[in-house]
Amino acid sequence: MGLERLLAERTRGMGVNAIREILKVVSQPGMISLAGGIPAAESFPMDILKELTCRVIDRYGSSALQYGRTEGFAPLQEALVGYLAEKGIHTEADDILISSGSQGVLDAVGKVLISRGDRVAVEAPTYLGAISAFNPYEPEYVRMDTDDDGLLPESLESILRSGEVKFVYLAPNFQNPTGRTIPRARRQAVARILQTHDALLIEDDPYGALRYRGSDLPPIKTLAPDHVVYVSTLSKTFAPGLRIGFCVAPEPILQWLVVVKQGIDLHTSTFNQALAAEYLTGGYLERQLPKILDLYRPRQEAMLEALERYFPPGFRWSRPDGGMFLWVEGPEGMDMEAVYREAVRRKTAYVPGKFFFTETGEGSHTLRLNYTMADEATLYRAVKILGKVMDEACGYSRLPRLTTASSV
Amino acid sequence: MGLERLLAERTRGMGVNAIREILKVVSQPGMISLAGGIPAAESFPMDILKELTCRVIDRYGSSALQYGRTEGFAPLQEALVGYLAEKGIHTEADDILISSGSQGVLDAVGKVLISRGDRVAVEAPTYLGAISAFNPYEPEYVRMDTDDDGLLPESLESILRSGEVKFVYLAPNFQNPTGRTIPRARRQAVARILQTHDALLIEDDPYGALRYRGSDLPPIKTLAPDHVVYVSTLSKTFAPGLRIGFCVAPEPILQWLVVVKQGIDLHTSTFNQALAAEYLTGGYLERQLPKILDLYRPRQEAMLEALERYFPPGFRWSRPDGGMFLWVEGPEGMDMEAVYREAVRRKTAYVPGKFFFTETGEGSHTLRLNYTMADEATLYRAVKILGKVMDEACGYSRLPRLTTASSV
Repeated sequence: MGLERLLAERTRGMGVNAIREILKVVSQPGMISLAGGIPAAESFPMDILKELTCRVIDRYGSSALQYGRTEGFAPLQEALVGYLAEKGIHTEADDILISSGSQGVLDAVGKVLISRGDRVAVEAPTYLGAISAFNPYEPEYVRMDTDDDGLLPESLESILRSGEVKFVYLAPNFQNPTGRTIPRARRQAVARILQTHDALLIEDDPYGALRYRGSDLPPIKTLAPDHVVYVSTLSKTFAPGLRIGFCVAPEPILQWLVVVKQGIDLHTSTFNQALAAEYLTGGYLERQLPKILDLYRPRQEAMLEALERYFPPGFRWSRPDGGMFLWVEGPEGMDMEAVYREAVRRKTAYVPGKFFFTETGEGSHTLRLNYTMADEATLYRAVKILGKVMDEACGYSRLPRLTTASSV
Repeated sequence: MGLERLLAERTRGMGVNAIREILKVVSQPGMISLAGGIPAAESFPMDILKELTCRVIDRYGSSALQYGRTEGFAPLQEALVGYLAEKGIHTEADDILISSGSQGVLDAVGKVLISRGDRVAVEAPTYLGAISAFNPYEPEYVRMDTDDDGLLPESLESILRSGEVKFVYLAPNFQNPTGRTIPRARRQAVARILQTHDALLIEDDPYGALRYRGSDLPPIKTLAPDHVVYVSTLSKTFAPGLRIGFCVAPEPILQWLVVVKQGIDLHTSTFNQALAAEYLTGGYLERQLPKILDLYRPRQEAMLEALERYFPPGFRWSRPDGGMFLWVEGPEGMDMEAVYREAVRRKTAYVPGKFFFTETGEGSHTLRLNYTMADEATLYRAVKILGKVMDEACGYSRLPRLTTASSV
């Protein structure tokens, strides 16, 4: 058999998924995983699921099980109009496309916009799922600089000046992997730059609703509405297993997203869209969201406290006001993939940060920690173990400048 | 705004969806649509939906709402092993990929296998949804000849001799749009040809379970297991709105389907997969399927009887043992897209057959009729109207050879 000869060129270029490989150990018994990017099971509204199902059956009958429009189930599109208005995004039901998770939008965006070799601007580091959505369309990534407050707008500007990019991809709220949030002034600067260069932004906002402190910031969509595809999801505030994402896009882009989505999956599950519509309109989200925040806030605080207590000098980490992740930077030159193996031996897992960079060689000394999947005591214990592993890794390092850096 | 300049080359090539345009009228009030390709709402097991939801909650708890493996929800993969064994396909859970409708497999197949300009062999006519899944990857279609028994194997053989095709796409059971089924001897011939040329078949089987008469035929997958991706769905036997499809693929292809699916939608709805697992293992499908067959069988018979009674001479149509469609051929030279406009004026819609051909100019005198969406009396009335419209179209035609043909 030689079926491999039939693979498309794009497939040959894909290679094995390295992160998938290294994370296989995470499901070993006894492992404490800070590697996941997933919500706590306790955050799901299990108690109302039967009630929601009954509402769907009573209200929509068999139409909830039937084929539906590619654009989305109309009652959900309408419910999202109100949901989005609270974020300052004023739109009509027809401008909203419902997708199979926000991943579904990212794939469709890639399909509609990227020809091989086209430039796509991404943060360094950036969300891995976006890269795996865009990669099959074979773009060239242009790396935008960031600091602790996320994207540096001047970096975007200089990239747009240097030539056309098909789109800019940003996650301005509690970014995955860093937890960073782009401040208001930078959002305004980004909006102006997009308008000046007539450029398109894919604004990915899966975590915006998970704010534990401080006030919401305006989506860039509200500042440059004609230049932004705003993407979000109910995966973090309802349930990821329902795969309900959505976007609000300028008309010239939206119509093509609909055309390609028809070829991808015809439409997103009608039944799940109906559940989501009832979740939003029945006041369930309003009641569930505070419970979710009360679950995650102390977990984040526990992790921050444990990092302070147990991590050796020379390390720094983000202190986000929301989301699901902390970003840790060790001393320059440290190899967090090598340290990962020792951490896993001691039954604690994280994601080495290098996987979130599009350019090899970057981020070796960084790692991502998730705090939504374990309770405070477990998180505390896990960070204590990691602190010890990091301490030893610094001490054992044969690079003298590391030893110095670790005591800064 | 000039965002259109950002479209990928593949998108520029897509053009408007002509069939989408002409079918817009179908939802007008009072219209009898024989144009749809969708199951009757009465075929859905509405009465057990609450019960199924309770089973899912009791059995799987919060894991039914959580992110899941890209490959599929293990209990559904396991349930499908037994389901497939009844069709003669002996496989393991790990060889099954669950997809978002069978459309999800077709898109992933295109992504994994087709580079621009690659040859893909399709029947003439073929399933429109497959074409819209493959088109964005920019294949060249090679047209295989068919007769009333579907694919002519010698046509496939001569195509494979003439050069490599990335894959062959066939729907051997009650094909959409023709309703045709490929007989056993031809399936054996196709299997031999695939093996001889080490070629890959995508065997699409959405309708195989909808058999009203006669005996099941073996899937080609059972005759050439290493050369076939078998694709099917629960859309016609459970509910299309849940978007549950699946495939069984040879290992070298399956692993890549999983990799690209991760970028497309991470995974198919866990909740819906859990519902499907319970539907299969709880004996619900076994009880529902006879009801579905008893619903559709008399509808098909009514349509066949009405065609016999009301359609003018010079017309012929398929008499399939199952599925959802009949294929009607009018006299050569007749333009069923023109006739469509008159039919719609009289509140009856169908799909002009030309849309199912990859080469322009073919199939102008053909049309597809669906019989699952209306009751027998309505179908009878609709076919009577269409018969009159066809009769007039033949009579009014200014092409003398048409008048002759119509009285054959």
